[in-house]
Amino acid sequence: MVSGLRPLRADDGQLLILDQTQLPYAEEWRWIATLDDAARAIRDMQVRGAPLIGITAAFGLALALRVQASDAALAAAAAALAATRPTAVNLRWALARMQARLAPLPPSMRADAAWDEAQFLAAEDAAANRAIGEHGLALLRPLAERRGTLRVMTHCNAGWLATGGYGTALAPVYAAHAAGIAVHVYASETRPRNQGLLTAWELARGDVPHTLIADNAAGHLMRAGKVDVAIVGADRIAANGDVANKIGTYLKALAAREAGIPFYVAAPRSTIDRDCPSGEAIPIEERDGEELRLVRGAFAYARVAERRTRVANPAFDVTPAALVGAIVTERGAVPPGELAGLFDPARRDG
Amino acid sequence: MVSGLRPLRADDGQLLILDQTQLPYAEEWRWIATLDDAARAIRDMQVRGAPLIGITAAFGLALALRVQASDAALAAAAAALAATRPTAVNLRWALARMQARLAPLPPSMRADAAWDEAQFLAAEDAAANRAIGEHGLALLRPLAERRGTLRVMTHCNAGWLATGGYGTALAPVYAAHAAGIAVHVYASETRPRNQGLLTAWELARGDVPHTLIADNAAGHLMRAGKVDVAIVGADRIAANGDVANKIGTYLKALAAREAGIPFYVAAPRSTIDRDCPSGEAIPIEERDGEELRLVRGAFAYARVAERRTRVANPAFDVTPAALVGAIVTERGAVPPGELAGLFDPARRDG
Repeated sequence: MVSGLRPLRADDGQLLILDQTQLPYAEEWRWIATLDDAARAIRDMQVRGAPLIGITAAFGLALALRVQASDAALAAAAAALAATRPTAVNLRWALARMQARLAPLPPSMRADAAWDEAQFLAAEDAAANRAIGEHGLALLRPLAERRGTLRVMTHCNAGWLATGGYGTALAPVYAAHAAGIAVHVYASETRPRNQGLLTAWELARGDVPHTLIADNAAGHLMRAGKVDVAIVGADRIAANGDVANKIGTYLKALAAREAGIPFYVAAPRSTIDRDCPSGEAIPIEERDGEELRLVRGAFAYARVAERRTRVANPAFDVTPAALVGAIVTERGAVPPGELAGLFDPARRDG
Repeated sequence: MVSGLRPLRADDGQLLILDQTQLPYAEEWRWIATLDDAARAIRDMQVRGAPLIGITAAFGLALALRVQASDAALAAAAAALAATRPTAVNLRWALARMQARLAPLPPSMRADAAWDEAQFLAAEDAAANRAIGEHGLALLRPLAERRGTLRVMTHCNAGWLATGGYGTALAPVYAAHAAGIAVHVYASETRPRNQGLLTAWELARGDVPHTLIADNAAGHLMRAGKVDVAIVGADRIAANGDVANKIGTYLKALAAREAGIPFYVAAPRSTIDRDCPSGEAIPIEERDGEELRLVRGAFAYARVAERRTRVANPAFDVTPAALVGAIVTERGAVPPGELAGLFDPARRDG
């Protein structure tokens, strides 16, 4: 297990984040001292991954409340953080929870309470990751027993870099690795932001064998029988089980179905948006076309743009529930049509 | 139409190619003076695209024969050129045709005859492109009549840069544009070599409206109803209609079927390998993993590799015939199961 590795440190009331836009080339840590710092870190993807976005926003709110803690200031800070990125529901979920916790308190108590609550939220996410790993491992184990090495396809980065703990999609991989199961992960590049390099980087750190591929190669490898299971994270799961995740996820899900490969989604319950009936209601973030232009330098590439090349850059897509074999949460793995059971009010944490 | 634009010039017995590894950033032309120059240009993808590879190999053979024109030299030169890239069958087809034409001649006549034959091959490809454009236009016209603007998804580059003329997949697009039909092309980046930028570049030159997307976005756009038809080229078409084309084509074909969008393959008959029963028999080129590392500079990226990140880089995939609506050739468009009819021996050019 990759214990102790965290993309965010919040000790002594100070917040430090690993700048993921510099990975895997450089490990640079940045102090986040203000609401604006936090909002910028989320918007510019210095921190990314649905759970980590939520955690960072919670700390950002705490930082804002140190300056001003009135009801109006609390609402304004939450609104500013919520506006940073539209698709991941964990962001809104974390902010709503913070507000529900803080609003009843007198303003003078809010800043400290917010920091504690953000710490608790991060710890809770780490615990959820661990449980996701165990429940996911239960799905992987029978596949591994049929194979020498279990070959896992993932997309984007849903590992410890994206969360408060061990990751979502990668948590079962780390759990399998720790349990002595031979695993090999195919990490796809994940254009345009190349988060597949983050996955390669963190798998290398965790000594998990892996192969980097172009996103385009995923279909070929699945069709060629080189993949046993696909696992991805999620940015928002609708009530009907439709899954919004990093752009390109849907293509992998289609290829998995075609090849008869199980396709699993791993996410904490905070990713499930029970107010969202289906994938059609999930807002899809359109990001700056310049992201595609990182290929060989913005300056040179701008010459193409001058010649009237438009760029479309949707950051997420929706994988319909019908393509998803199971959604793996901290409460266990369920088919996408049975999400309601994860919120059983009879359970303590329901 | 994009008349007069050619990626290869062969005037006065001298061969000049547009170095496509420098596009769209710079337009650099390179003299190809020897067999080695030609082989290197193909291997390093200074020239690429199945038809253009075949044409370049034909000229390369002619250059070799200027130095030595014995039977052994002819065979050796053809073997050296054939070894450059394994998947595109046009390469082998062009070399076989050159050898059949040249072998009966006395060695002293071979060099000039080879040059003429290579010229003829290029002209024939241009004529095939034009016919593909017309046959493809017949497929597009009814779709265009139902829509304001016909939105075409393509992959890689199968335009004039890839051929001796107007392109294969893009020939119907140029024909539609010339016929006054409003078209808009989605050009996908085509990692790892980014040939989508070549498509954007040549479409801009031809004043055809277009949008560049990450490969990952293709499924989302098709599912969102933003695409009316998908057209791609091919590197080899098996006798059963299975299509080998640039890696990532298969994922687009899956998404097109799922969205009910016609998926067409445009290629000259020289791309059809009647000796190859199905896609399983098509060799898939595995290229250097360094190609993925162009993301942000080879030097920096090498640090990932040091941490034991492997790279898999298959350059092509196979789209099964069942996903292909029609194969558009210079002889007309046929369902993938009816390729044999394109080689009717009763026809003059059969």
